[in-house]
Amino acid sequence: MIKKDVIFDTDPGVDDAMALLFLARAPQVHLRGITTGHGNGDIENTTRNALYLKDRFQLEAGVYRGTAGPLKGEPEAPPAFIHGENALGDIAIPAELNSRIGAQSAHQFIIDSVRQHPHQISIVAVGRLTNLALALREAPDIAPLIKEVVIMGGAFGYHGHTGNVTPLAEANIHGDPLAAEEVLGAACPITVVGLDVTYKTIMSGRYLDRLAETAGEAGRFIREISRGYERFHQTVGLPDGFYVNDSCAVAYLLDPSLFTTVSGPVRVVTEGFAEGHTICSREGAWGSRPSQRVCVDIRADAFLELYESVLVGKPAGQPA
Amino acid sequence: MIKKDVIFDTDPGVDDAMALLFLARAPQVHLRGITTGHGNGDIENTTRNALYLKDRFQLEAGVYRGTAGPLKGEPEAPPAFIHGENALGDIAIPAELNSRIGAQSAHQFIIDSVRQHPHQISIVAVGRLTNLALALREAPDIAPLIKEVVIMGGAFGYHGHTGNVTPLAEANIHGDPLAAEEVLGAACPITVVGLDVTYKTIMSGRYLDRLAETAGEAGRFIREISRGYERFHQTVGLPDGFYVNDSCAVAYLLDPSLFTTVSGPVRVVTEGFAEGHTICSREGAWGSRPSQRVCVDIRADAFLELYESVLVGKPAGQPA
Repeated sequence: MIKKDVIFDTDPGVDDAMALLFLARAPQVHLRGITTGHGNGDIENTTRNALYLKDRFQLEAGVYRGTAGPLKGEPEAPPAFIHGENALGDIAIPAELNSRIGAQSAHQFIIDSVRQHPHQISIVAVGRLTNLALALREAPDIAPLIKEVVIMGGAFGYHGHTGNVTPLAEANIHGDPLAAEEVLGAACPITVVGLDVTYKTIMSGRYLDRLAETAGEAGRFIREISRGYERFHQTVGLPDGFYVNDSCAVAYLLDPSLFTTVSGPVRVVTEGFAEGHTICSREGAWGSRPSQRVCVDIRADAFLELYESVLVGKPAGQPA
Repeated sequence: MIKKDVIFDTDPGVDDAMALLFLARAPQVHLRGITTGHGNGDIENTTRNALYLKDRFQLEAGVYRGTAGPLKGEPEAPPAFIHGENALGDIAIPAELNSRIGAQSAHQFIIDSVRQHPHQISIVAVGRLTNLALALREAPDIAPLIKEVVIMGGAFGYHGHTGNVTPLAEANIHGDPLAAEEVLGAACPITVVGLDVTYKTIMSGRYLDRLAETAGEAGRFIREISRGYERFHQTVGLPDGFYVNDSCAVAYLLDPSLFTTVSGPVRVVTEGFAEGHTICSREGAWGSRPSQRVCVDIRADAFLELYESVLVGKPAGQPA
């Protein structure tokens, strides 16, 4: 099997950790590196969490520390009410970790990896897009050398879903709208997996309980870190379980056939009340801005089955 | 019959003139005044056209001259390629007109009318919203005294339609986005009739020919002024006829049952690439900003029948 060579850009984060395990355990993936960003926690916190995940799940991929804030302005306060004070559901994390961060910065690691392996590297970005924007600013030549980028972010209103941090903006985009506007204008194939589809995927309490039983340590870990995340979702009107935002981006990488997409140039509002609003328009709407792919639908049941089968280590469709 | 007491705020304009005749001839309407604005022509032009229409069709309503430009910045160049150099399809307009403009400014006329007739005045606004915004700035107390406002403007993307002057913005809103943002925040019942519905209404060449035969001078006039307007629509992919933008707002006033609407607060992007983009969100999305009505669908055939019947002077459904 020729494996996909993947960089995971992340701000763990409960659903980031779930997506990382999904990605790292997928048989068709070689996880090359984990780049960290501000977002669900501050950069210290998310980087420490990435190192902890590397320790705990014996991940070979290196961890590369990203920037502490967005391209412009100060980072937003991390949403501790969603992901916990330590951004991993407040589970106990040892003070001493074995893993160390890599020597390169996150964006330098992206640049170097793409240059060394042109047309080979897939990037799954599930946090603010700051690292990727910095990489493209510093090395615009890498854009056409990136195999593909899958972004969890945005909200296009295809099913009436709009934002989760403002009425119009999703958190990953709102946290660095300028980075998103720059990245989405890059001449590389980008797929955007926004709330339009992630809000269709719900892991129920029962699903999570089953995962804890069948998916070994990873399953128990996911159940443990996600208790507070589940409680938060109850406060926003989801009586049972939670949306599986970041893992949807991984699912697109593994099996795009789960999704329905549209194509068109995508822009991001970078100022005013609509800051962070993502808009997909028709081909040619904004001059030569390239068309990207935007997910408008997902086969949610098949996605949940795929997630479980990868975590359990059995091909989808076979009894666990 | 208790008639609707109506102020028509307009920038004639080919489809403005068509909407004005539709409104003035509707038996259930008392047309109190015509307020003019910049837009399809400059303010000199649109005001002169309003006076010409008053002369030619013996309208009793006074004409009140509005402002020459938007709340902020300079007015856009009038789209002579759509409405003609004189904004009425370049028909011959006499140098000398009998009618004179009223002593009040457009926004003062709106303020005075609403104060003198609280809860009685309907405003149909089919141009930039500058006059209405100025009235509400100068006399915020009138907002709850306005019976209703029907606006032709905006594009919400309900059927994939976005803008007509930018990929995201419709001309009336784009021409003064700040005015639109202010007006749509006012605490009076507003209905927005945007491209989402107006693009579903097409008057074909055959329809216009029939109107010229059956609707007397008004019908012949409409056929005459709309030749260039029809040609313009051919250049944007409509092989036969044109969209009937402004008359849709009049139709909403006359028979709201022709429309399907949604409710929610509406905001307008006032800066950046999305300037003039209109967004309807969920109740409470923007604090206490009031919900307005946004049209998402129209029974186009019934609308065309209503227009014809009013112009011809026969109740809809009866043979002309």
